[in-house]
Amino acid sequence: MSTRTIDLNADLGESFGAYTIGDDAAMLDIVTSANVACGFHGGDPEVMNATFRVAREKGVAVGAHPGFPDLWGFGRRIMPFSPAEIERIVAYQVGAATAMATYAGHRVAYVKTHGALGNLTERDPAVAQAVVNAVKGVDPNLPILAIALSHLERIGRDSGLTVFSEIFADRAYTEDGHLVSRKEPGAVLHDAEFAADRVVRMVNAGAIETISGRLLPTRIDTICVHGDNAESVDVARTVRAKLEAAGIALRALT
Amino acid sequence: MSTRTIDLNADLGESFGAYTIGDDAAMLDIVTSANVACGFHGGDPEVMNATFRVAREKGVAVGAHPGFPDLWGFGRRIMPFSPAEIERIVAYQVGAATAMATYAGHRVAYVKTHGALGNLTERDPAVAQAVVNAVKGVDPNLPILAIALSHLERIGRDSGLTVFSEIFADRAYTEDGHLVSRKEPGAVLHDAEFAADRVVRMVNAGAIETISGRLLPTRIDTICVHGDNAESVDVARTVRAKLEAAGIALRALT
Amino acid sequence: MSTRTIDLNADLGESFGAYTIGDDAAMLDIVTSANVACGFHGGDPEVMNATFRVAREKGVAVGAHPGFPDLWGFGRRIMPFSPAEIERIVAYQVGAATAMATYAGHRVAYVKTHGALGNLTERDPAVAQAVVNAVKGVDPNLPILAIALSHLERIGRDSGLTVFSEIFADRAYTEDGHLVSRKEPGAVLHDAEFAADRVVRMVNAGAIETISGRLLPTRIDTICVHGDNAESVDVARTVRAKLEAAGIALRALT
Amino acid sequence: MSTRTIDLNADLGESFGAYTIGDDAAMLDIVTSANVACGFHGGDPEVMNATFRVAREKGVAVGAHPGFPDLWGFGRRIMPFSPAEIERIVAYQVGAATAMATYAGHRVAYVKTHGALGNLTERDPAVAQAVVNAVKGVDPNLPILAIALSHLERIGRDSGLTVFSEIFADRAYTEDGHLVSRKEPGAVLHDAEFAADRVVRMVNAGAIETISGRLLPTRIDTICVHGDNAESVDVARTVRAKLEAAGIALRALT
Repeated sequence: MSTRTIDLNADLGESFGAYTIGDDAAMLDIVTSANVACGFHGGDPEVMNATFRVAREKGVAVGAHPGFPDLWGFGRRIMPFSPAEIERIVAYQVGAATAMATYAGHRVAYVKTHGALGNLTERDPAVAQAVVNAVKGVDPNLPILAIALSHLERIGRDSGLTVFSEIFADRAYTEDGHLVSRKEPGAVLHDAEFAADRVVRMVNAGAIETISGRLLPTRIDTICVHGDNAESVDVARTVRAKLEAAGIALRALT
Repeated sequence: MSTRTIDLNADLGESFGAYTIGDDAAMLDIVTSANVACGFHGGDPEVMNATFRVAREKGVAVGAHPGFPDLWGFGRRIMPFSPAEIERIVAYQVGAATAMATYAGHRVAYVKTHGALGNLTERDPAVAQAVVNAVKGVDPNLPILAIALSHLERIGRDSGLTVFSEIFADRAYTEDGHLVSRKEPGAVLHDAEFAADRVVRMVNAGAIETISGRLLPTRIDTICVHGDNAESVDVARTVRAKLEAAGIALRALT
Repeated sequence: MSTRTIDLNADLGESFGAYTIGDDAAMLDIVTSANVACGFHGGDPEVMNATFRVAREKGVAVGAHPGFPDLWGFGRRIMPFSPAEIERIVAYQVGAATAMATYAGHRVAYVKTHGALGNLTERDPAVAQAVVNAVKGVDPNLPILAIALSHLERIGRDSGLTVFSEIFADRAYTEDGHLVSRKEPGAVLHDAEFAADRVVRMVNAGAIETISGRLLPTRIDTICVHGDNAESVDVARTVRAKLEAAGIALRALT
Repeated sequence: MSTRTIDLNADLGESFGAYTIGDDAAMLDIVTSANVACGFHGGDPEVMNATFRVAREKGVAVGAHPGFPDLWGFGRRIMPFSPAEIERIVAYQVGAATAMATYAGHRVAYVKTHGALGNLTERDPAVAQAVVNAVKGVDPNLPILAIALSHLERIGRDSGLTVFSEIFADRAYTEDGHLVSRKEPGAVLHDAEFAADRVVRMVNAGAIETISGRLLPTRIDTICVHGDNAESVDVARTVRAKLEAAGIALRALT
């Protein structure tokens, strides 16, 4: 009998110099994959090196997590970059992360875009294409991690890249499978039990569950959790526990 | 009968956004290798991409040219980084340049450190070791370009890296083979004919010629020229012409 | 008999560290007012200090010239800042420039916004209001320099600020008095004689001359010229000469 | 009978974008003066505005707190700036803070240098003179806050500036009145009771108490406390309570 497996990923390594953000130590004991900031929206060479080393020691896979060059806005603002310029800032950051991971004795297993750049890859096909072009231009064997049902998921697969599909543990979904905007009530799930139960249902069903309870079939390779605060760490920990209790093994993407 | 060959390198791709520095177009028709800034002291992903593409078209080899993270000071100030931190900023930049070159259809052939960081590799063995550690950590097959008679040259060779030795076309040498400080009179050679004749003498002798005319034997693989202004471009062009007239072929490092 | 006077302004002090942009030395002999970059899109404390000192020596008035925090884009990209955030980045830069001018023995005579921020003050009333709020919040006696017929001109006057109205020497105007986009043919006037003759006609008529030759009456206090390249410096010099030949004296805003 | 008074100051407003540092809310209920970062080593225009507004509401005085342009190093590294360049970066930041405070309805009451720059003003007379030149050049009526027995204290007074002398609540002093290096054991006092009792003794004695218990007479206008973590906030709170219990009123500098 085959064991079902799933990956659990989170954004980590986002601290900068004396500025600490997120509870990386806790999260590296929960997730199977860490999306590591590349120094543009967060992170710096010291933080990257330390994050890759700890991830390696704990057996956590790592991904390059490029974002807009916007430390002030933490990569959450849409910056005025053309698709061609986005290709270059993604290629640059993927290269920096790849080298830092190798230097730290680890290796970059995938690319996942951050924040506003990640959101654009969901809804803007030109940006999705730009990310695909960047990854193919740097290393066509490097998988990408794409939001389930996004333009990036479709364009990445069409282009021949390995694409892993991602759902979110603590975000509500609209009826057409998009994330409910953070400006809307109910966009973020604060109840760890509820969020974790929903994740198990989604993984078992192979489908996104919308805010009304409707199921939208999709491939699911990985679940995104957050580690910004105590509450989100609790959600992540509960998601992991409930998945394991449901017989779904946590395992990094391969 | 074997033909003698030598490489001619220059710092290029140092522009930033709307800010242009150096006459890259002219220099790419003169040199055989371009040391391309990696976005820390100069350069940006757009400039890197454009520089790598033009270099590829013109058959010019490219090197990663990491520097201190000091755009304001153009990498010419000694920044307060420990050797361990220098390892990480070099590894990061080498990775970024490697990816950008690949993306642009070219490939990074070597690493050469820039400005104040380059000067430190000449005289501070801990910094030289840090650069060696960074390159070995990222790609032990990647050669480094070191100032002739420097700590980096020695430590790099001892560590098993391929090391290319460099002399300067337009800089005077002290009696012990160091560069005369730019603060001293006569530090920079402004006379193109004189500089070019001296280069030919040094290559033929396999030795550095000091300011007094003394010869210090050294391996010479490449000659550094500058392209900051019309005068330095003229020196570079004359150096190339006199080398070829002397039967020394210009060829990129391999 | 009264002498008619006009001010001639240009963006200066936009160099950054080793990066030089524009021919400031030439322009400071032509203009009566210098819009000095404040370190966000260009300029740095050293450049600001040097520019204020030379301007003082040459009797050229100086203005604070705040822009978006976008050195990479030279302030020419619309950055994702809300009007409230724009208030703060303008207040910050006006303060920095005011102190640097005082330190250099000069004084800031006005505020003019740069690049994409300046364009937004023409067409977006919320941004125009933000700039007015910033200047009033820092120093309500500080005049602003606004594009003729812009939202900033109207809102600034309505709010009680002293507002100087500006036309452009080398840019074509649409039929409703806006600048023709740089993406359109004919947007920039390259013929120095033609541009200078048009300026004299506009000043004499007290009106903007559109690309079809139509006149749109407006107050004109100052004329913006550029110093980016040899051609634009030539336009500036010719504009000054033709104004003086027409009996219009060049004098800084007071 | 006169009431003795003392000022209590702390570094605040050091957050940057999404990065939060220090417990500003707690500290603004404890201190009488806030040293507000100016955007070079920490802080940004949004943080500055918010900090000045809350300080005004709570009746806390504010100072400009310029540092080296080193967000990555949080202003704690000695950056390679000449005294002349330090004059300009201080003048720039003092101006920015002055304008932001005015914009926020508050006013800058003094200047205190941050981190590595502050340390240099204690022991390097050229840097101390540079800070004095900057403040005098921007506003000769603006007081400075100097470490007791430092070069800045002496040079500032000799130059005619108003100088407030500062001691540290949680740092040990060497026998000649300098701060014990953070690299030495015992440099930082972690025991709130002990630290607060020592502060009361120092204020009552008008003297610095060295690590051996020796007293070095000095003027004391203000006491520096920290708010980086729960422990340091506890020290600050205890210092305030013990001072008040000893009949020493907390009052901002005037």
